Amino acid sequence: MKSESVSECLCLLGCAGEMEVSLLEEVENILRYRFRNKKLLEEALTHSSFLDGVSYERLEFVGDPVLSLAISNYLFLAYPDLDPGQLSALRAANVSTEKLARVAVRIGLHRFVRHSAPPLVDKVERFVDAVKLEINPVAHGGSVKAPKVLADVVESVAAAIYVDVNFDLQTLWVIMRGVLEPIVTPDALEKQPQPVTMLYEMCQKKGKQVDIKPSREGDLSVAKVFVDGEFVASASSSQKDHAKLEAAKIALGKLAHLVPSTDKKSATNMKLNFAADENGTWVVEAPKNKLRELCAVKKWPIPEYMYCSLT
Amino acid sequence: MKSESVSECLCLLGCAGEMEVSLLEEVENILRYRFRNKKLLEEALTHSSFLDGVSYERLEFVGDPVLSLAISNYLFLAYPDLDPGQLSALRAANVSTEKLARVAVRIGLHRFVRHSAPPLVDKVERFVDAVKLEINPVAHGGSVKAPKVLADVVESVAAAIYVDVNFDLQTLWVIMRGVLEPIVTPDALEKQPQPVTMLYEMCQKKGKQVDIKPSREGDLSVAKVFVDGEFVASASSSQKDHAKLEAAKIALGKLAHLVPSTDKKSATNMKLNFAADENGTWVVEAPKNKLRELCAVKKWPIPEYMYCSLT
Repeated sequence: MKSESVSECLCLLGCAGEMEVSLLEEVENILRYRFRNKKLLEEALTHSSFLDGVSYERLEFVGDPVLSLAISNYLFLAYPDLDPGQLSALRAANVSTEKLARVAVRIGLHRFVRHSAPPLVDKVERFVDAVKLEINPVAHGGSVKAPKVLADVVESVAAAIYVDVNFDLQTLWVIMRGVLEPIVTPDALEKQPQPVTMLYEMCQKKGKQVDIKPSREGDLSVAKVFVDGEFVASASSSQKDHAKLEAAKIALGKLAHLVPSTDKKSATNMKLNFAADENGTWVVEAPKNKLRELCAVKKWPIPEYMYCSLT
Repeated sequence: MKSESVSECLCLLGCAGEMEVSLLEEVENILRYRFRNKKLLEEALTHSSFLDGVSYERLEFVGDPVLSLAISNYLFLAYPDLDPGQLSALRAANVSTEKLARVAVRIGLHRFVRHSAPPLVDKVERFVDAVKLEINPVAHGGSVKAPKVLADVVESVAAAIYVDVNFDLQTLWVIMRGVLEPIVTPDALEKQPQPVTMLYEMCQKKGKQVDIKPSREGDLSVAKVFVDGEFVASASSSQKDHAKLEAAKIALGKLAHLVPSTDKKSATNMKLNFAADENGTWVVEAPKNKLRELCAVKKWPIPEYMYCSLT
């Protein structure tokens, strides 16, 4: 399975040495940009596990603020009427690990990452399969956690271009704008609100006090949601933000009774990971996503659902 | 006291309307830059409490990544041999709230912030007094927490220049480089290591497991330090990172017995907020700073200390 996936479509496991010119050209075609210094692109595609002395980490250090400023400039100019809070939410959605990892999968960049870390292959493969099944782009995390390596590579490739064009952000943006499509817009964000924000807003409307307490359990980050001091939900993950997000999603599902049915309908239309069943009880879509994902791995048909009354 | 400080040296409380041209020119002289669009500078100096419709928050949204990328470019080029972890630590030290708030005080920018929030005056005043007493620039927080408004204004002024020079980061850097002096260098950072990093490194060397658990108590962030599962220290603050920092400092003081005396000496030379007393016990310098600060407020002479043996 692993050797098959390596050669087929995922990451390149390999030994030290130069990357094949044809592979670099393939990436240049994807980016629609020819590097003056091909070594930069090679570095941007090299994971630290690869035994070649260099890795994308120095470029990623620059790529993070490069994308952040490029997107900030764009949002600042494109939306003169948005308040700073809305601008920050939009920026976060456009440069999040979830968003950038999906960019990597959409343009196929994940196929060119050089590494010597076999566990990465499986992680990336599971994510790629899950993303392929997403009907709408998921801004805040889908059924499978986005592997950080994929977002890192988008950042490091952006930095490689930025250095290659002599630190000219305008030129970088002309190239990266297309790569980052679809840019998350205020409309898209409104249709897919951030679960943590949504939880806070919902509780505020109902005069309830919500508190998300982070903690550590061994190597895992744990997030526990309390409403008016009472425990509602918890989730754990290796990523702190992911734990918080998942806990908020579960809490939203459990607190659905607080939301009037009209709100529920509009929320369901928002393509959130929640849906109301026949009895008006909300169910979390995560199990469905897990099943879809499993079916994809096993090459089974995508499952369909029917609602039926239990009475 | 308050009206005196307003006219004397701190923040400008005022009513809506245009800023006096002479004040704007004074800021331009400080920055050594003449704005083509003076409105940008006025906006950058206006706190959201000021009743004028605009505030610096939209500019601050851009200013944060502007400074982050400008510093990143500089570090990336200036230190080709530093690893990504060291680069990230340097960047964080150069754009932290503590660093930028000190920049505001050093160049006197705090005197030009327009606001209608009287509590700000006291906060800024206490910080300014404390900073004036610092012998060495403090990268990770001194005796008085840096008010966020001061760092925000440095970011918003940077963004105002950036927009005024038509989003040209190289030109922005030529102007801001001098403003941000002294840039924290690898040497400076090594002499003043981040207490949280230091705590982790010290415990790792001794084969001990350190865990800093964050939590909330009402409006306050609390950080508790556990070593090998045992509670060692805790601190609280309105800012989460500040709570963590303070808890780490206290823990370092309490765990000083883990450090061999030679290490202690070099650590003391590092101008950390800790010093070893005659008995080899480390004492946290915070109480000394508090006393110095109090003396400054009361216009008393700066206290001096002598070590004397208790035997």
